[in-house]
Amino acid sequence: MTGAPVVLDAMGGDRGPDATVAGAVLAVRDHGVPVLLAGRADEIADRLRRHGATGEVGVLHAEDAVPMTERGPGALGRERSSLAVGCRAVRDRDGAGLVSAGSTGAVVSCAVRTVGRAEGVLRPALVIALPNLAGGATVLVDAGATADPTPEMLAQFATLGAGYARRVLGVADPRVGLLTIGAEPGKGNRLVRRAAELVAALPLRSAGNVEGHDVLTGAVDVLVTDGFTGNVVLKNIEGTVRATLELVARQGLAAPADLRRVAAFYDPETHGGAALLGLAGTVVVAHGSSSPRALARACAVARDLAAGDRAGGRADG
Amino acid sequence: MTGAPVVLDAMGGDRGPDATVAGAVLAVRDHGVPVLLAGRADEIADRLRRHGATGEVGVLHAEDAVPMTERGPGALGRERSSLAVGCRAVRDRDGAGLVSAGSTGAVVSCAVRTVGRAEGVLRPALVIALPNLAGGATVLVDAGATADPTPEMLAQFATLGAGYARRVLGVADPRVGLLTIGAEPGKGNRLVRRAAELVAALPLRSAGNVEGHDVLTGAVDVLVTDGFTGNVVLKNIEGTVRATLELVARQGLAAPADLRRVAAFYDPETHGGAALLGLAGTVVVAHGSSSPRALARACAVARDLAAGDRAGGRADG
Repeated sequence: MTGAPVVLDAMGGDRGPDATVAGAVLAVRDHGVPVLLAGRADEIADRLRRHGATGEVGVLHAEDAVPMTERGPGALGRERSSLAVGCRAVRDRDGAGLVSAGSTGAVVSCAVRTVGRAEGVLRPALVIALPNLAGGATVLVDAGATADPTPEMLAQFATLGAGYARRVLGVADPRVGLLTIGAEPGKGNRLVRRAAELVAALPLRSAGNVEGHDVLTGAVDVLVTDGFTGNVVLKNIEGTVRATLELVARQGLAAPADLRRVAAFYDPETHGGAALLGLAGTVVVAHGSSSPRALARACAVARDLAAGDRAGGRADG
Repeated sequence: MTGAPVVLDAMGGDRGPDATVAGAVLAVRDHGVPVLLAGRADEIADRLRRHGATGEVGVLHAEDAVPMTERGPGALGRERSSLAVGCRAVRDRDGAGLVSAGSTGAVVSCAVRTVGRAEGVLRPALVIALPNLAGGATVLVDAGATADPTPEMLAQFATLGAGYARRVLGVADPRVGLLTIGAEPGKGNRLVRRAAELVAALPLRSAGNVEGHDVLTGAVDVLVTDGFTGNVVLKNIEGTVRATLELVARQGLAAPADLRRVAAFYDPETHGGAALLGLAGTVVVAHGSSSPRALARACAVARDLAAGDRAGGRADG
């Protein structure tokens, strides 16, 4: 693999550099992704040494770090944070893309400010590809970037999500649905009712309204919602999968070890990260509790997305 | 069982009088709940005859019916619908409570107009008791009555939900949480951030913010959200349970017949109905696709809620 490295925010995530440095080493060794770690050089160097990986992973020194409790705008003042330094590297094309397991709000704020929005985009959206029962994936957009979008923003999310489904998942003509309550036209809240009219006017294959029970069935390729509902749904899926498997285990119907394979299907460990769409560069937000394996996978996703951006076509990921 | 009968909307629900008449017969025979069926007398009488139940179930003639596609205000003009006739029976204390599997929006509109709100209540809320992993139940409020509440309404939902947990579930001092994104104070959308301040000022045991993955863990006794998010979450749980069990079955880990026992745990068949709180009378909204068994259970819930209202204490359900 050649090209600019993926920049990994070494200080982001609940487990800090212990997880991120290990993740960078895995990204290089297992996925062939060149990685540049942004963060405190001494803390990174120590850990690279322990992995016997000095020289395998680049380091971009940043003496400050954004705390995980920072929910957004406060991150902007920290010009020397690993997040800010990483975003600038992507803006300046020293990095192919950024991966951070930091606070989603902070990553979104900093990336929008530094990397900038793509032309015409009002607000960015997080997209996550959820494996569905039809054997494919359903793109959930927005999964948490913009908690209070306008109907116009929601309509843009539909276009962004459809682009992701085409380029990354290879779906030629994705079916796009709006998440709402009640499948009949006219149901939902004010936001969705207005957005439905805007989406219907877009050059997209509209699948109409989708209810909560169809999120995982593969009824649509792209499921559009606001960042609040999207994030609640994403985490509700995680919790419900765990609860269901726990009940199966308690009834003695299957062995917990076997059930963990099913859990892995929806685990953030597996999907690796959420892409922040609508920016002028590639940004992937990993789960705050990401393991090294999940971070390595997120680096591979960032590489593939960046390659797709360059090629203007389908990523090879 | 003595006292006023529960009024069951015979024309509501996807399966119409075929399901509701059978449900009424089961309610009388299996649960000892006296039932009055509101709807077209001839259609009801035919079916009662087929069940050999003529005389066991009362009939309140109503020649009109609200279509399932009616999402709310349009139901108000239909004074002779089974829904309107049923609501008036509850208002006039001829019925202990109303059960309808009609369109949620229509039931809410009609019940609010006819039965009326309890004093001081801004908007009603649907509550549903979700079985949780801790062995109890978590009261989800609002599960779909008010899609666009104000922060003040959301704070009232907290009080209504806590009252339900105390009276119906017997939880002495229920822990009340707000569903949001990010557990830290200050996260969420505009609605939740403002509502959090209002809820904190109430005489309730506040458990702070709850994320989507904790809906089923029993982290709180009452989970407060707007009716749009609540309805999406409720249906997302149903869909995710089904998807998870499907994956377990596909991997050959357990027999589908055994897995259906786990599915039943969260099935609308089991919880029977959602109570519409904040009204001057008892109203239970059953799932549109309710089977006779689910409708019978909803009638029993309505009887128990009405008994609790009369006693001002814990229902015996």
